[in-house]
Amino acid sequence: MSQPSQPPAPGRSIDELARLVGGVVEGDGKRVITGLSGLEEADPAQLSFFGNPRYKAAYLATKAGAVLVDEGAPPRAGTTLIRVKLPHLAFAKVAQAFFPPKRHVPGVSPRAEVQEGAQVHSTATVMAFAVVGKGAVVGEGAVLHPSSYVGEGARVGKGSLLYPGAVVADGCIVGDRCILHPNAVVGADGFGFAFDPEAVKHEKIPQAGIARLEDDVELGACACVDRATLGETVVGTGTKIDNLVQVAHNVTIGPHSILCAQAGVSGSAKVGAGVVMAGQVGVAGHITVGNLAKLGAQAGVAQDVPDGATLLGAPAIHHTQYLRSAMVFEKLPELAKELRGLKKRIDELERELAKQQGRASA
Amino acid sequence: MSQPSQPPAPGRSIDELARLVGGVVEGDGKRVITGLSGLEEADPAQLSFFGNPRYKAAYLATKAGAVLVDEGAPPRAGTTLIRVKLPHLAFAKVAQAFFPPKRHVPGVSPRAEVQEGAQVHSTATVMAFAVVGKGAVVGEGAVLHPSSYVGEGARVGKGSLLYPGAVVADGCIVGDRCILHPNAVVGADGFGFAFDPEAVKHEKIPQAGIARLEDDVELGACACVDRATLGETVVGTGTKIDNLVQVAHNVTIGPHSILCAQAGVSGSAKVGAGVVMAGQVGVAGHITVGNLAKLGAQAGVAQDVPDGATLLGAPAIHHTQYLRSAMVFEKLPELAKELRGLKKRIDELERELAKQQGRASA
Amino acid sequence: MSQPSQPPAPGRSIDELARLVGGVVEGDGKRVITGLSGLEEADPAQLSFFGNPRYKAAYLATKAGAVLVDEGAPPRAGTTLIRVKLPHLAFAKVAQAFFPPKRHVPGVSPRAEVQEGAQVHSTATVMAFAVVGKGAVVGEGAVLHPSSYVGEGARVGKGSLLYPGAVVADGCIVGDRCILHPNAVVGADGFGFAFDPEAVKHEKIPQAGIARLEDDVELGACACVDRATLGETVVGTGTKIDNLVQVAHNVTIGPHSILCAQAGVSGSAKVGAGVVMAGQVGVAGHITVGNLAKLGAQAGVAQDVPDGATLLGAPAIHHTQYLRSAMVFEKLPELAKELRGLKKRIDELERELAKQQGRASA
Repeated sequence: MSQPSQPPAPGRSIDELARLVGGVVEGDGKRVITGLSGLEEADPAQLSFFGNPRYKAAYLATKAGAVLVDEGAPPRAGTTLIRVKLPHLAFAKVAQAFFPPKRHVPGVSPRAEVQEGAQVHSTATVMAFAVVGKGAVVGEGAVLHPSSYVGEGARVGKGSLLYPGAVVADGCIVGDRCILHPNAVVGADGFGFAFDPEAVKHEKIPQAGIARLEDDVELGACACVDRATLGETVVGTGTKIDNLVQVAHNVTIGPHSILCAQAGVSGSAKVGAGVVMAGQVGVAGHITVGNLAKLGAQAGVAQDVPDGATLLGAPAIHHTQYLRSAMVFEKLPELAKELRGLKKRIDELERELAKQQGRASA
Repeated sequence: MSQPSQPPAPGRSIDELARLVGGVVEGDGKRVITGLSGLEEADPAQLSFFGNPRYKAAYLATKAGAVLVDEGAPPRAGTTLIRVKLPHLAFAKVAQAFFPPKRHVPGVSPRAEVQEGAQVHSTATVMAFAVVGKGAVVGEGAVLHPSSYVGEGARVGKGSLLYPGAVVADGCIVGDRCILHPNAVVGADGFGFAFDPEAVKHEKIPQAGIARLEDDVELGACACVDRATLGETVVGTGTKIDNLVQVAHNVTIGPHSILCAQAGVSGSAKVGAGVVMAGQVGVAGHITVGNLAKLGAQAGVAQDVPDGATLLGAPAIHHTQYLRSAMVFEKLPELAKELRGLKKRIDELERELAKQQGRASA
Repeated sequence: MSQPSQPPAPGRSIDELARLVGGVVEGDGKRVITGLSGLEEADPAQLSFFGNPRYKAAYLATKAGAVLVDEGAPPRAGTTLIRVKLPHLAFAKVAQAFFPPKRHVPGVSPRAEVQEGAQVHSTATVMAFAVVGKGAVVGEGAVLHPSSYVGEGARVGKGSLLYPGAVVADGCIVGDRCILHPNAVVGADGFGFAFDPEAVKHEKIPQAGIARLEDDVELGACACVDRATLGETVVGTGTKIDNLVQVAHNVTIGPHSILCAQAGVSGSAKVGAGVVMAGQVGVAGHITVGNLAKLGAQAGVAQDVPDGATLLGAPAIHHTQYLRSAMVFEKLPELAKELRGLKKRIDELERELAKQQGRASA
């Protein structure tokens, strides 16, 4: 939750920004840029980027003073271009320069609760109504916003941010430079029960494991990563998880994966590295999703997914195959009608042929 | 979260209620109504409504003392009717009279945290463990429940309610008369990253914009409206958002739309006015959903939607077309079998015909 | 959120564990077990279980000192078996012995807020920043974690746990031995509005009812159970609800049902006893889901579901029927092509036959 309310960043020359991203300037590099904006909204004091051909019209019409573009982009009179390999990535780096992370005053608010045996680093910030449980550890420069919670024996690494209402339950581990957005929950009980037919009730299986986020993990608002029944639920380094995502007990997710909003991964599933799940994807329990697999929005995945596969639909199949089938699906009533029509014509043909054979044999 | 625990509202005569909703009384208007109930549960001291033909049997059997009905409803011996154009709407207004909003004592709890430069109106209520950040503004009659959070420089308008755990992040804006249900989150970071293939990591794109709710917006429990990367994510006046809904960065939603539970709208989508999304709908990024469009439950919308369209399925198509196709989908195995059957019969016909031609040419 | 950080439980002999679960020991019952683990990770001091044939290979290779197995499992040299009817259930009971619930020191934190007329049992625990509203009742041994909220006139039964950020809104009722995981919400307003075409706005229908959880209900992180418009939303005894599930206003759910993550039940639906909803299921409003019905992942249910039915798909149909149709769906483009092929052959046959008839009649 960066700081829009901070004073506008000082201007930077296009040359300076080009150096920052290792780009080549075409046009007036001395021009000063004071802000960033989309192609359509940008004014001559702002920088924008053009990476997706879909926005070519907006690029050709933009009033931006500078635009980050790739090798292929046509020149624009009156606009200075910064040519880079990856305009979107370059834009991220420029934006990081214009919008540095908010600074927080170190220290523990007198209205925070830090329980016995907890270790809070002197450079960490613990705000009002935040709780650090018994024996918990909060690392260098970590920031706990109001009403955030670090449970007994839990650990929050260096520079990690817990936004308001974020919860790290007892014994769970959050690595370095992680971001937990408001009301995100790490370490709620896994959903484990065994039905007792005699007592006619679901017996709770104690969830005695933990949940662990490795370094540089981001967890969206109201996203949930459950603790393991035994052992660990693990979210790998650099994996980014969007709002309202469910990661069930004993799941492991490889590094640098992306889980978009409202996706859900069921218990004990193994998700590889560099996987991308679009919004509302569902992954069944105990299956494996291979490295670099891409699962399209709302895909329902019940079988193992090979490395690099791109799937769509429920049950999920190869995405182009799904889209082709979906086009026929729209026409199914006509298809069924045609089939009935052909059937009639075949009946007729058979009758006719029978007649002729009658004559022939007469 | 209205007040069921409040003392029962004083009785009102049916005549009085009819005036309230501009309805015409049929039967004894002097009768006193002390409460509201559904058609099936209502007793002679209660008022109910009959708007949906589906409940005609319940209407004909109801013991309610008064029923709000439309022009078409048949009379009911022993029950007083109040004829109105829109019984459901009239019921809403009667219910508002019977269940006025809970009153809160103005003032800031000594256990709340109001930071420097924050402006809290003298008629606002800030409860224990609520936080109002630096320079934030809380308007006339606004109510911040325990553990709710208004970030640095954020604004909450007149008469708005933040229920426990609701979060309005730094710099975000909530209009007048908005309701944020428990643990709703306004202004978490948008989900924006750019992959760096050399560093092999996702570079975070700072989310420097804000989220803004216009007036009379309702946001359900654990619903999330992300801040924009640059500029604003906007939820229009009078739009109602249900629990666990995701509204991504830079989305704009027109006024008076309805997003039911667990729906999700991806980044930069433009949703029009008076749109209705049923539960678990998914809307892709960068598309436009036209005014008054209706998206059926679980619809997956990846293309622009024209004004007034009613879609269903994934990919979403016209809802009746989808339902017709779905009926054929159930029979696909039989269809495929028939097709194989026809193929055999055609093989046979071709053989027969060939024989005859043999004879003929003999 | 059990306690992994607690000291390891004391060892127990296999004989003792067998008695606990009414099992029969095969092998060395004197052996001491000090912990539990999965078949693959277990060491000779640990107990595991083998209930699902899918894991036979892991069972045959396990290094576990003891394994809970059913009648059918083959013997394992060097491993002591405990034969039971239901290994998974027996494992649950053994795990409960090894991981007893965390104990909490009774009492109200000086930093908690207990409002006038609230009754907190002397054996209950109310932690820092928790709130108990006016006239609310917190039962024997109940535990309110930091930032949890019990609203005005609400009731929380004996031994129930509210984890951080869990909310029980005004007037709502939570039975005995319930568990509300972090940021779960009981009693947010139902999503009820009536559109006023003249004022061109959605009129809010006051939600004056309550939400009630019966005994032994578990509610996952960020799960939401809305209050009723009038009357009650009810979750039956022993029903277990996973993370991010939506239960809308006036829904009733029978006892001992299971709702997996991200499932959603729309307003006024009646869900029976022993129902199982897999992840991301959607149930439409005002319908009935029969006892013991099973709804597969992502199923979209818009019609009444008979007792014991097993459905899949959207609209949901019998699950095997759905899977068979889904297999044909994959081949729809080929199917359509075949159909066109047959049509051509029939055209040709008709031409040929016409010719012959020409000759014949010549």
